[in-house]
Amino acid sequence: METRLKGQGNPVIISPDRPTVIIGERINPTGKKKLAAALAAGELDIIRQEALAQVAAGADVLDVNVGAAGVDEVALLPQAVKIVMEAVDVPICIDTADSAALAAALEMHKRLNPDGKPLINSVNGEEASLKRVLPLVAQYGAAVIGLAMDDDGIPDNAPARLAVAKRIAQRAQAAGIPQEDLLIDCLALTMGADANAGRTTLEAIRMVRAELGVNLSLGASNISFGLPERETINSAFIAMAITLGLNCPIVDAAKMRFHILAADLAMGHDEYAMRYIKAFRQRAKA
Amino acid sequence: METRLKGQGNPVIISPDRPTVIIGERINPTGKKKLAAALAAGELDIIRQEALAQVAAGADVLDVNVGAAGVDEVALLPQAVKIVMEAVDVPICIDTADSAALAAALEMHKRLNPDGKPLINSVNGEEASLKRVLPLVAQYGAAVIGLAMDDDGIPDNAPARLAVAKRIAQRAQAAGIPQEDLLIDCLALTMGADANAGRTTLEAIRMVRAELGVNLSLGASNISFGLPERETINSAFIAMAITLGLNCPIVDAAKMRFHILAADLAMGHDEYAMRYIKAFRQRAKA
Repeated sequence: METRLKGQGNPVIISPDRPTVIIGERINPTGKKKLAAALAAGELDIIRQEALAQVAAGADVLDVNVGAAGVDEVALLPQAVKIVMEAVDVPICIDTADSAALAAALEMHKRLNPDGKPLINSVNGEEASLKRVLPLVAQYGAAVIGLAMDDDGIPDNAPARLAVAKRIAQRAQAAGIPQEDLLIDCLALTMGADANAGRTTLEAIRMVRAELGVNLSLGASNISFGLPERETINSAFIAMAITLGLNCPIVDAAKMRFHILAADLAMGHDEYAMRYIKAFRQRAKA
Repeated sequence: METRLKGQGNPVIISPDRPTVIIGERINPTGKKKLAAALAAGELDIIRQEALAQVAAGADVLDVNVGAAGVDEVALLPQAVKIVMEAVDVPICIDTADSAALAAALEMHKRLNPDGKPLINSVNGEEASLKRVLPLVAQYGAAVIGLAMDDDGIPDNAPARLAVAKRIAQRAQAAGIPQEDLLIDCLALTMGADANAGRTTLEAIRMVRAELGVNLSLGASNISFGLPERETINSAFIAMAITLGLNCPIVDAAKMRFHILAADLAMGHDEYAMRYIKAFRQRAKA
């Protein structure tokens, strides 16, 4: 199944038959005090800088999230989307839990790039979320990430996460959204707190790939929360998840790009390691 | 299935239900000019040093290979095994293609540690190899690594490697070797030369785990041959292989230990990340 995203540049295709698509995670104030303060103060140049830096570091798509204390998302999210679209030409992943802000950002995106196709992060299996988000996805012809959680929270086992993913897929279809425009995020919880956290996510990814066949996203950086040398943990986990079907992770591109290129090489998506070697040479020159 | 190895210290158990067992690869002159020259000159203290360093770096078992130009393996291999056994108490993996050297090393091992159980690296599906090696495995009550290749070479696809593995398993059983004493190495070829090399190995690992159920070893460092930043490639590949069933890789412990600990954490083999954190603290102190 191919998910096609479109910024102002070439379309980005997410598919099990292609290399992993990297969504850059850094335009997001969660846990970043400096960025949160800048956004609250209306200092938005940092967004432009992060956009340029992430694309230079290999991000194929950029997540844009401005949710922080003291921020009016309905006003700020469309502005942030505009800044990113003016700085770089990759597809945008609009990341908010506020449906009014989502609608405003989608409207801005459409105005600046009528032929574009953004990704929305996210809907989940909660009734309220499905009702608020899916109509906007359909109306704007966007793609959407569905989180494998619902009104009962995040299931503690893989079959239950698959069940939520299936329900989201049914509801998306009923809302007129083609299945290829739905990505599932099986959710990665902190592994230091629960020995089964990683395994449950990996097993859910395997099951969703096998039984739903949709493409798979994952916001994975939290798995290493509280542990030393987080890059080692994150890179191992991302490679493991790619083995089982993950093909569109949300990560820090500067830290994860080469690990992901290595995993793509092992998955047979890099003839003669040309992508890996090219990225290595680019970095050596920079 | 549990494979039990025994040096002079505690037994080492290889099992899908336990953390990955690391076989240290560094006592092997292949591609190491300095070590090859030292061995040819009979300078063996380097073996003792490598043994100590690898165990300090987290190796659970030590591979011992002295095959190099100008080396009489039948004379040197038992000596090398003795030096390692005097330096450290972990199980030994006797690595040679010379069955006379293997017999001599096994005899030395038995003399120094009558209750021990070494690992033999390796037998393969070639008729000559099966006939030479399996009787020694049975006679000395050792465990053995079976390479998924035979008289026709290394199969270019996973089902054919599984078929070779099954044949080795049958022959081992016929020779009186319990199935838990057989590990399979699905063979990792250079990924820069063949886009399907990694995928074929990963798929073979998945199939051998599912259909034979034996434990899985892998000499994996060659997959990155000729490519830059080999540690990035090797660590991603090892994590991916662990996801699918690898549980006893032959690696450079100093380079791969933390990546493997991270993979074990994701596989649910490290409650509260205690092994990972402990290793991190040990390294910080060293």
